[in-house]
Amino acid sequence: MTEYSPRMFITFLSDFGLQDDFVGTCHGVIKRIAPEAEIIDITHGIQPQQVLQGALVLANTLPYMPVGVHLAVVDPGVGTARRPLVLEDGEGRLYVGPDNGLLVPAAEAGGGIAAAHELANPRYALERVSRTFHGRDLFAPAAAHLAAGVALDELGPPLAADALARLDLPEPDVGENRIRATVLYIDRFGNVQLNLTREHLQQAEVPPGTTIEVELALDRYYAVAARTFADARKGDVILYEDSYRNIALAISGGNAAELFGAAPGQEVRIRLRVP
Amino acid sequence: MTEYSPRMFITFLSDFGLQDDFVGTCHGVIKRIAPEAEIIDITHGIQPQQVLQGALVLANTLPYMPVGVHLAVVDPGVGTARRPLVLEDGEGRLYVGPDNGLLVPAAEAGGGIAAAHELANPRYALERVSRTFHGRDLFAPAAAHLAAGVALDELGPPLAADALARLDLPEPDVGENRIRATVLYIDRFGNVQLNLTREHLQQAEVPPGTTIEVELALDRYYAVAARTFADARKGDVILYEDSYRNIALAISGGNAAELFGAAPGQEVRIRLRVP
Amino acid sequence: MTEYSPRMFITFLSDFGLQDDFVGTCHGVIKRIAPEAEIIDITHGIQPQQVLQGALVLANTLPYMPVGVHLAVVDPGVGTARRPLVLEDGEGRLYVGPDNGLLVPAAEAGGGIAAAHELANPRYALERVSRTFHGRDLFAPAAAHLAAGVALDELGPPLAADALARLDLPEPDVGENRIRATVLYIDRFGNVQLNLTREHLQQAEVPPGTTIEVELALDRYYAVAARTFADARKGDVILYEDSYRNIALAISGGNAAELFGAAPGQEVRIRLRVP
Repeated sequence: MTEYSPRMFITFLSDFGLQDDFVGTCHGVIKRIAPEAEIIDITHGIQPQQVLQGALVLANTLPYMPVGVHLAVVDPGVGTARRPLVLEDGEGRLYVGPDNGLLVPAAEAGGGIAAAHELANPRYALERVSRTFHGRDLFAPAAAHLAAGVALDELGPPLAADALARLDLPEPDVGENRIRATVLYIDRFGNVQLNLTREHLQQAEVPPGTTIEVELALDRYYAVAARTFADARKGDVILYEDSYRNIALAISGGNAAELFGAAPGQEVRIRLRVP
Repeated sequence: MTEYSPRMFITFLSDFGLQDDFVGTCHGVIKRIAPEAEIIDITHGIQPQQVLQGALVLANTLPYMPVGVHLAVVDPGVGTARRPLVLEDGEGRLYVGPDNGLLVPAAEAGGGIAAAHELANPRYALERVSRTFHGRDLFAPAAAHLAAGVALDELGPPLAADALARLDLPEPDVGENRIRATVLYIDRFGNVQLNLTREHLQQAEVPPGTTIEVELALDRYYAVAARTFADARKGDVILYEDSYRNIALAISGGNAAELFGAAPGQEVRIRLRVP
Repeated sequence: MTEYSPRMFITFLSDFGLQDDFVGTCHGVIKRIAPEAEIIDITHGIQPQQVLQGALVLANTLPYMPVGVHLAVVDPGVGTARRPLVLEDGEGRLYVGPDNGLLVPAAEAGGGIAAAHELANPRYALERVSRTFHGRDLFAPAAAHLAAGVALDELGPPLAADALARLDLPEPDVGENRIRATVLYIDRFGNVQLNLTREHLQQAEVPPGTTIEVELALDRYYAVAARTFADARKGDVILYEDSYRNIALAISGGNAAELFGAAPGQEVRIRLRVP
């Protein structure tokens, strides 16, 4: 096999959707600059301007991606003073995107922020930078130049890691009889990912098979702590560890988010010991 | 041109949708294992868990794909005892996916099942196999290793072709005055594909230009047996041979599925000789 | 780096959507003919059969694409006598698609139509050409053969540029106190692109910061002529130059198309000097 440089791959995550040309146009921009770079689209289905969702999906998926340049654009502050960034993590991965917290959780999971630079060198942006589409004019060109071998510090002045914007990740409240959690994400199958891990359930002493009560908005449901869909009967609500090791709610053979009317950011209360 | 090994291409079909990261994550997993493999996404728009629809689309589209590794994941039984599979067909195509009938119609159209193996060798899966995302943890890695040249029998023990799960394909009932058919598929344009071929219409003696009557649920419509949209006036319901050689219902310049309220699996009754 | 032939890249735009296999099947067809060609999907989210929208997006995005073969399929006339085409523009870009005006604005922006040929040579189409899916059977194969180096005039007889079908592009009516414009396009973020440029606003003497009145259907809204979202308060309706240099309506932090109930083709009246 050809030997690949670690920078050949550009992964790409955004809230651009696939209905418009935003993603395709960024691909074109990258290919004009770095024809040999290979783009892996992680997803472009992040909900519009949901930076937290984008940050979580990026951090969850990056361990499955080749080391390379990781372009991410969820950018409600485009056109304001928020800085455009490139980061390097402890594993040599490079991240390109806005300084709004989007890149930080992934970089910290990858060994921490080893270097940070502002994208300030116009040589590595398109000639005309619009005020509303930095994905195309600034971030995609920077990612492409990095993939083609340009050094990090060519792109702009260094930034201190503690000067970067960071997100408030919602923390669960784990009590003796109740857990108060937050909906992080809802997938195509209607599975409802919570800001809980197996450790939280162990701490609260919820072994598999336990019946619990789940409360969303004004509605309550019984649920079973299960290891997989196969442990439940069709129609049962289950609380299980999903494939990214988050605890999630699902309905065996159904759509839990639809039943619950669940949305990201919503509070979920779990009552642990149902009489 | 470089000479390509027949295994360089991995086609990929699933019900994962493009809103989440499922497809992108599988791409990443493949590229970490086989950086030179090239992935062709057939579609990820199969309706969630509709194995029959996935099997039909795979069989319809494979003749248009390069010979290679054909990864397909529509897998309602993930986490249960259903086996993970690799098949080889008579044309040297390799198929990777669950043992639920999804792969069989395509392999049989490709000269029949020449070999079948269970995916049982943990060396060709990810280190940690989750209970809910075998696409990422089991199937994508197996496809990548096959593309990189690993032999079929390295992946696990052989299975007899007649031990594989198979789907019940709905058969039409073609009578002298009536045909009873089933809706197989509805596309973006609202065209309604039926489990009928030109041969069924010939058998029932329906030449082009004939007016017929179509009944779905409680509604009836007149339709014209046509060769193409161009044979019909705007707004006419037509019964025509679609580009995959299935008989389908459409409205010239409109959306037939919306008009009919049609859904896959629904029965359609066609009355042939309208007075 | 490897030296790339300018024809290696095939860009692809259509109204096929990504729910079905149409796009994936065309990718397969291309890769069987030209395994080394690299496909850039501009978008497949053009509204079904909206040729004008397809033509505008193609012309807007092509400057960001590598020079290559540019395949575009929005083809309500498939199966009728409309001709299949290949064009060459003044910059050496090749265009493949139907003769319905779809390709012309992009080719004219690229230095004008230098050559036009009908796709008439069956050698460069699939063996069986269906009546309803020329994307797969005719256009994708022609694009692939061009990418593989086949000469333009091999594909069929030359056509005069003035014999090609052209679209009527809607022209705005710019008066002293009013502008009458047309909605061209609505994107995922609900931004409403109009058939206006900065020059039209300058001609009408609308400097940034001006308050104007916008009328759609029976509703009226105040709006501010702004340079970017950052110039407006959350919730303000703004009239701004978008990243493709068209004038567009947006709501800072909101969805303008939803508020207005706007749709492509709709008339928008702008009253310039609000008392």
